[in-house]
Amino acid sequence: MTAGALPGQLQADPDALPPRIRLMAYGPERLEDREVASVAELDRLPEGLPVAWIDVVGLGDVDVLAALGRRFGIHRLLLEDVTRTHQRPKVEDFPGCVAVLLREPGLEVGGRDRQVSLFFGEGWLLSFRESQGEAFEPVRARIRQAGRLIRSSGADYLAYALIDAVVDRYLPPLEALGERMESLQERILLDPQPDMLAELFETRQTLAAMRRSAWPMRELLNRLIRDPLPGIEDETRIHLRDCYDHAVLVLELLEGHRESCGELMDFYLSSVSHRANEIMKVLTITGAIFIPLTFVAGIYGMNFDPERSPYNMPELRWAYGYPVAIVIMLGIAVGMLIFFRRKGWLR
Amino acid sequence: MTAGALPGQLQADPDALPPRIRLMAYGPERLEDREVASVAELDRLPEGLPVAWIDVVGLGDVDVLAALGRRFGIHRLLLEDVTRTHQRPKVEDFPGCVAVLLREPGLEVGGRDRQVSLFFGEGWLLSFRESQGEAFEPVRARIRQAGRLIRSSGADYLAYALIDAVVDRYLPPLEALGERMESLQERILLDPQPDMLAELFETRQTLAAMRRSAWPMRELLNRLIRDPLPGIEDETRIHLRDCYDHAVLVLELLEGHRESCGELMDFYLSSVSHRANEIMKVLTITGAIFIPLTFVAGIYGMNFDPERSPYNMPELRWAYGYPVAIVIMLGIAVGMLIFFRRKGWLR
Amino acid sequence: MTAGALPGQLQADPDALPPRIRLMAYGPERLEDREVASVAELDRLPEGLPVAWIDVVGLGDVDVLAALGRRFGIHRLLLEDVTRTHQRPKVEDFPGCVAVLLREPGLEVGGRDRQVSLFFGEGWLLSFRESQGEAFEPVRARIRQAGRLIRSSGADYLAYALIDAVVDRYLPPLEALGERMESLQERILLDPQPDMLAELFETRQTLAAMRRSAWPMRELLNRLIRDPLPGIEDETRIHLRDCYDHAVLVLELLEGHRESCGELMDFYLSSVSHRANEIMKVLTITGAIFIPLTFVAGIYGMNFDPERSPYNMPELRWAYGYPVAIVIMLGIAVGMLIFFRRKGWLR
Amino acid sequence: MTAGALPGQLQADPDALPPRIRLMAYGPERLEDREVASVAELDRLPEGLPVAWIDVVGLGDVDVLAALGRRFGIHRLLLEDVTRTHQRPKVEDFPGCVAVLLREPGLEVGGRDRQVSLFFGEGWLLSFRESQGEAFEPVRARIRQAGRLIRSSGADYLAYALIDAVVDRYLPPLEALGERMESLQERILLDPQPDMLAELFETRQTLAAMRRSAWPMRELLNRLIRDPLPGIEDETRIHLRDCYDHAVLVLELLEGHRESCGELMDFYLSSVSHRANEIMKVLTITGAIFIPLTFVAGIYGMNFDPERSPYNMPELRWAYGYPVAIVIMLGIAVGMLIFFRRKGWLR
Amino acid sequence: MTAGALPGQLQADPDALPPRIRLMAYGPERLEDREVASVAELDRLPEGLPVAWIDVVGLGDVDVLAALGRRFGIHRLLLEDVTRTHQRPKVEDFPGCVAVLLREPGLEVGGRDRQVSLFFGEGWLLSFRESQGEAFEPVRARIRQAGRLIRSSGADYLAYALIDAVVDRYLPPLEALGERMESLQERILLDPQPDMLAELFETRQTLAAMRRSAWPMRELLNRLIRDPLPGIEDETRIHLRDCYDHAVLVLELLEGHRESCGELMDFYLSSVSHRANEIMKVLTITGAIFIPLTFVAGIYGMNFDPERSPYNMPELRWAYGYPVAIVIMLGIAVGMLIFFRRKGWLR
Repeated sequence: MTAGALPGQLQADPDALPPRIRLMAYGPERLEDREVASVAELDRLPEGLPVAWIDVVGLGDVDVLAALGRRFGIHRLLLEDVTRTHQRPKVEDFPGCVAVLLREPGLEVGGRDRQVSLFFGEGWLLSFRESQGEAFEPVRARIRQAGRLIRSSGADYLAYALIDAVVDRYLPPLEALGERMESLQERILLDPQPDMLAELFETRQTLAAMRRSAWPMRELLNRLIRDPLPGIEDETRIHLRDCYDHAVLVLELLEGHRESCGELMDFYLSSVSHRANEIMKVLTITGAIFIPLTFVAGIYGMNFDPERSPYNMPELRWAYGYPVAIVIMLGIAVGMLIFFRRKGWLR
Repeated sequence: MTAGALPGQLQADPDALPPRIRLMAYGPERLEDREVASVAELDRLPEGLPVAWIDVVGLGDVDVLAALGRRFGIHRLLLEDVTRTHQRPKVEDFPGCVAVLLREPGLEVGGRDRQVSLFFGEGWLLSFRESQGEAFEPVRARIRQAGRLIRSSGADYLAYALIDAVVDRYLPPLEALGERMESLQERILLDPQPDMLAELFETRQTLAAMRRSAWPMRELLNRLIRDPLPGIEDETRIHLRDCYDHAVLVLELLEGHRESCGELMDFYLSSVSHRANEIMKVLTITGAIFIPLTFVAGIYGMNFDPERSPYNMPELRWAYGYPVAIVIMLGIAVGMLIFFRRKGWLR
Repeated sequence: MTAGALPGQLQADPDALPPRIRLMAYGPERLEDREVASVAELDRLPEGLPVAWIDVVGLGDVDVLAALGRRFGIHRLLLEDVTRTHQRPKVEDFPGCVAVLLREPGLEVGGRDRQVSLFFGEGWLLSFRESQGEAFEPVRARIRQAGRLIRSSGADYLAYALIDAVVDRYLPPLEALGERMESLQERILLDPQPDMLAELFETRQTLAAMRRSAWPMRELLNRLIRDPLPGIEDETRIHLRDCYDHAVLVLELLEGHRESCGELMDFYLSSVSHRANEIMKVLTITGAIFIPLTFVAGIYGMNFDPERSPYNMPELRWAYGYPVAIVIMLGIAVGMLIFFRRKGWLR
Repeated sequence: MTAGALPGQLQADPDALPPRIRLMAYGPERLEDREVASVAELDRLPEGLPVAWIDVVGLGDVDVLAALGRRFGIHRLLLEDVTRTHQRPKVEDFPGCVAVLLREPGLEVGGRDRQVSLFFGEGWLLSFRESQGEAFEPVRARIRQAGRLIRSSGADYLAYALIDAVVDRYLPPLEALGERMESLQERILLDPQPDMLAELFETRQTLAAMRRSAWPMRELLNRLIRDPLPGIEDETRIHLRDCYDHAVLVLELLEGHRESCGELMDFYLSSVSHRANEIMKVLTITGAIFIPLTFVAGIYGMNFDPERSPYNMPELRWAYGYPVAIVIMLGIAVGMLIFFRRKGWLR
Repeated sequence: MTAGALPGQLQADPDALPPRIRLMAYGPERLEDREVASVAELDRLPEGLPVAWIDVVGLGDVDVLAALGRRFGIHRLLLEDVTRTHQRPKVEDFPGCVAVLLREPGLEVGGRDRQVSLFFGEGWLLSFRESQGEAFEPVRARIRQAGRLIRSSGADYLAYALIDAVVDRYLPPLEALGERMESLQERILLDPQPDMLAELFETRQTLAAMRRSAWPMRELLNRLIRDPLPGIEDETRIHLRDCYDHAVLVLELLEGHRESCGELMDFYLSSVSHRANEIMKVLTITGAIFIPLTFVAGIYGMNFDPERSPYNMPELRWAYGYPVAIVIMLGIAVGMLIFFRRKGWLR
């Protein structure tokens, strides 16, 4: 939402798609499913079919939204919420109408989530979506099968089925993130690299975004179950309780993933520290052995003149000078190796 | 607030601006908008205009405040709160008057936030600001357009519109901070430097300050919605609920940014550690290869006298002494390189 | 649960075992304990025995579940919950029937937990398990002993006994994890290795999974104690209160272990850092002593020609040149050692 | 409090000062302010003065306390709380008397906080302090000014004024701590030293101690405002609400400071890590350039005898041997420098 | 508790001591204090003494516990709780009897805590302890003094006195832990060693254990104060409120210590990092000065033959070759020192 946008003023996002309206009206025996060209067609809903589901995909035409709002008696502020597609999930009740705003996560990791708005009353349900998604397909499939519970239930049950479909959409990306983190863990243990860090960071932010849209859904379902909202039957409440359990499961998975993310960060840091030690050990072992040896060799590379004085490097002229020097060097090297083995630095 | 300042005593901040008063009185048909020279002018509000908005910019004259307080029946303690511009946002209700204290964030990052005080009752709204800001302009613009909802609503709706304008002012600096953190992340990944740390630290503190002023607003809006405050109509409460949703969104963004800040700190530390490893690897590889080689060269730089004994460095006089030494050195170097490649240290 | 699975549709997991049904009916005096071949046998429960416990192991046959559901009047959604074995523990009450879903932890560390579903009403209890476990054995043993309290109590007491048995199953794996962490701590202090990190990580995730299934049990027991559920007698509530205390104990142990896990992570990092210092100290001490000495030796290894000028390395021809050089070197080495001892780096 | 101290037994701390009692009785017109030598003098409070404030400084004489307790009907347990000067702030109400225990922070950082106990009823207020502090002076000053609100209010307003004075005492040390942390941040960025760490640690503990005494004050003020305590008038409650806002502000500052402290710790760690990299870079650059060069020089310092074989270091006798060696060395050095510049290690 | 232990079955821990029973019956005038050989002696409590305190030390004989349970009408589940000495503190009320389970901390750091079970009703109090401790001694001493409040109060006051004695037992080990942490801090600042880390780890776990037993006590005291439990008089509730304040103080100290523990961990890590820098600085300074110098010396140690060509190291034959080389070396060393001083690495 832009700061300063005027409340009470419907404004379409310039990038929004033009709306396509589809009507699905059904009862236990009969089913009507067709595209609707203009809102005027909806003035009279099909007779003899207890539930009419008007599904609007694309929010690009403010007039269509306004006409639908007038037709079904939806408060202007709620219509604005439909067009401003960054709303927090919530439920609002008005006389004769319950409004539910949800967010459907993108299926691929890091994908943008989309707002889904549901309005329902006695015998009708109006849904608004930014773009055609997959979430509602299973519900449509169920409606098409005669004899299913949904065919003999009311608009409140349809609302439940759609909400449940949206909640279940959270599971595939969560599973994908879980696998991604497992693979990250293995790769970090093998060889920690900064691009893994960036990947971890991105995963964290995806999880934070999913959490922001998933948390309010729990609260929302709770309200649908507990509050005496009009038009929600007891049987539907039982199903919503089940849906609530799914939402809680989604949140617990989310929180679990978030914790794992934090732990992977620690894991990365620890792995990097461990590798630093490995590197330093090699330098230290090489250095601590050869630097003293080089010094010994340096001593006998000095040019003090043994001719001038018996004190000037008489070793150079000893018969066994060289072998003794070599033995001294070997002694130093072996001593160092024993010291390092004691320290446990040589594996 | 200075410790020991006497409650019940109005004191102007010496740096405060002199007050300028502007009266905007309106009804569905008519609008009056003018500067007011003295409080006495307000003894009789324009007739036939249902809402009078008195906007005071500058808190430098205690007498003006006191006169306004007397005129509209505002408790002395609240007037003090107006002059002490570090109050926590809150709502207080008195008979015939509701007081709302808010904080408007600075638009630029790190900018000082300013206190906005609103008092409203039947047909009037009194606002106090430290200095002329931009926040109220869109509301004024709306009032000037005849036919807008605000023109036919009461002072409670005006209060809502102003609160909503202040809440929406939080979004631009939050967006700026978000972009700043994204750029920080990229720069840290490239080359972590302590000035980024300082920038991160400053960002954290800006967020903490914004949070301190934004949190109470949620609670405040909650009270305005739920409590049976006088003079707030049901229609306005619906709008306030929408405003409450915005405030929650602001808070969620704030919390998300705060978390990202903490993660960037980890990110910085991890990047620094990774670079430390890179640096150390170069030293280790150079050292571990050349230190042993230098030792070998040092050996044959010793001056043991081969004349004196056949044990003293006979290699020096061998025909292939030098080539053999070179081959030994190459062998050591190649061995080390293989070792490092196995460790995965050479890319 | 697969996204898009149709609610209200019973589907068996293809890997689920075929169900085996066992009936244990008992009263203070008599006990009947036998396998049941078909659900039809259960149409009439043994007469004169106040409690009938039907234990179903294996969830592979949807028809059997459906038949049991019809026989005991269990809501379809709950039967689905039985077949989808990743439910969150919960309690649901329906007229004439209380449903309790629990999770029994695997006994070995990292073992998969299994869902246990209990349904009970006046005089009967129906339990569903994925596979034969050990948890229910102690309860069966108690039932077989005549004169035990359980023999003269109702189905609600049996439900309590089974819940208590499941809650107590959490203690052995928690104890095993506790010992594992103690051993980890010792091994980390001795020599921190990345496989310990991976072990720690795995332990954390086992704990997180246990916690996800243990937390809801507390809430569930609370509901069983406080809510006026049908068929739970006051005496049983007293026992459930005791069971609630056990669940709280389990949760406190879990939280304690989780905290210890986090502390072990810090411990690992600190140990690695400490070892890094130890390694670096050895390199620094060796380097800082021998690098200057090698330089001194290098000086007198230079080939400036003393014949050409009295300024060219006259030391080489001094009578005491070599001893003086050795003394200088010793002085440098001793100075360094004193410096390091002052720093506290030599133990 | 010593473990095993007997409740119900008044015991003076041996280090406590002897009590000095001061009576300040006032009404709108008249004021009496004098030292009181013995408790007996207080048997009859000055007539015609609606409020009598008895301020006791020094808790060294149990008999005086007991006599005052008897005189004003204070429960023994509360008198004990007065003498044991490490109580948690709290409010307790008894018939005819409200007791408020507060803690006044030391003004200098790390200073000890002192307990302030207030008891008030109809027309009287009794205050106990460990030692003469500055907190009550502004209130006394206000009382001395005729015409001030306090002069025409009751003992409950006096209690409010004193509580408010104590709450405001938290601001100066918080401000000092804030400045201290800012200076710490700058010094850490410049050159992180362990004494800063110790200072940070001390700051954290001061904040933790302040928090322990400030948190209960909020709860305490809440009770004073909401509970129907005897003798607190509605007007005073309005003032207490203001005081409550100050307490919340103090707590928010405290929490903000605590968070900053944690962030400074991270800041320190990051700065130290960064400096470690800087140090290592210098070593790595120097080492990686000169170690290979020294090796090359070492090669041509070997003493293989060119006389014996044409393979033995023929370079030594080449006309351009030396310049070529120098060029090779320069090549290595320049190559390394280019490598380091690419890595971005040379600024 | 062993998984699978049968509820409702009293089982003594095989290591438990045999019970010793002591009866202390008292009233304002008279006191009886003696060992009791068998439970049968307690069938008739001493007449004319309003309070009878039966203190049982040692839980090794199930029959004695069962007999006492029958004598005083204690529920079997509670008797089990007495024998299973790892219960969470709790309060349970039954008709005519209140049960309080507490945990008394070990006085030495890391010492095992012991369960204390109190049951009281009209005129009697039954206490069970695992072994003779010191906690109850001050209460006995008070009872022995005629004229003390406890002598003229009921069993509820005795219960309060014992609970208060247990709560106060938490203070000495907390004080000891506080001092231990202070000493740790100093030692870490001086020279961080891994044994300090292990000590810190152990301290954390001791605190976690204390917390697990202290937290429920607060809740327990709250219930004793607020719930309308039978036989607790208003005067006793006032004392329990005081005891509640002590429990809160204990918890605040515990939380404070826990936070300090976490901070000490950070402190350790930071100190280790700082020392790493110190160590590395010494290596870097030594290396960066002497490695280039050694190279220069190495140059003039090369054996290029100046006889063969005027380009081969003519410096060696210059009159001032050696002094110039020394000056170059000095120049390099001084340059490096200036660089290090600028970096602030030489103090």
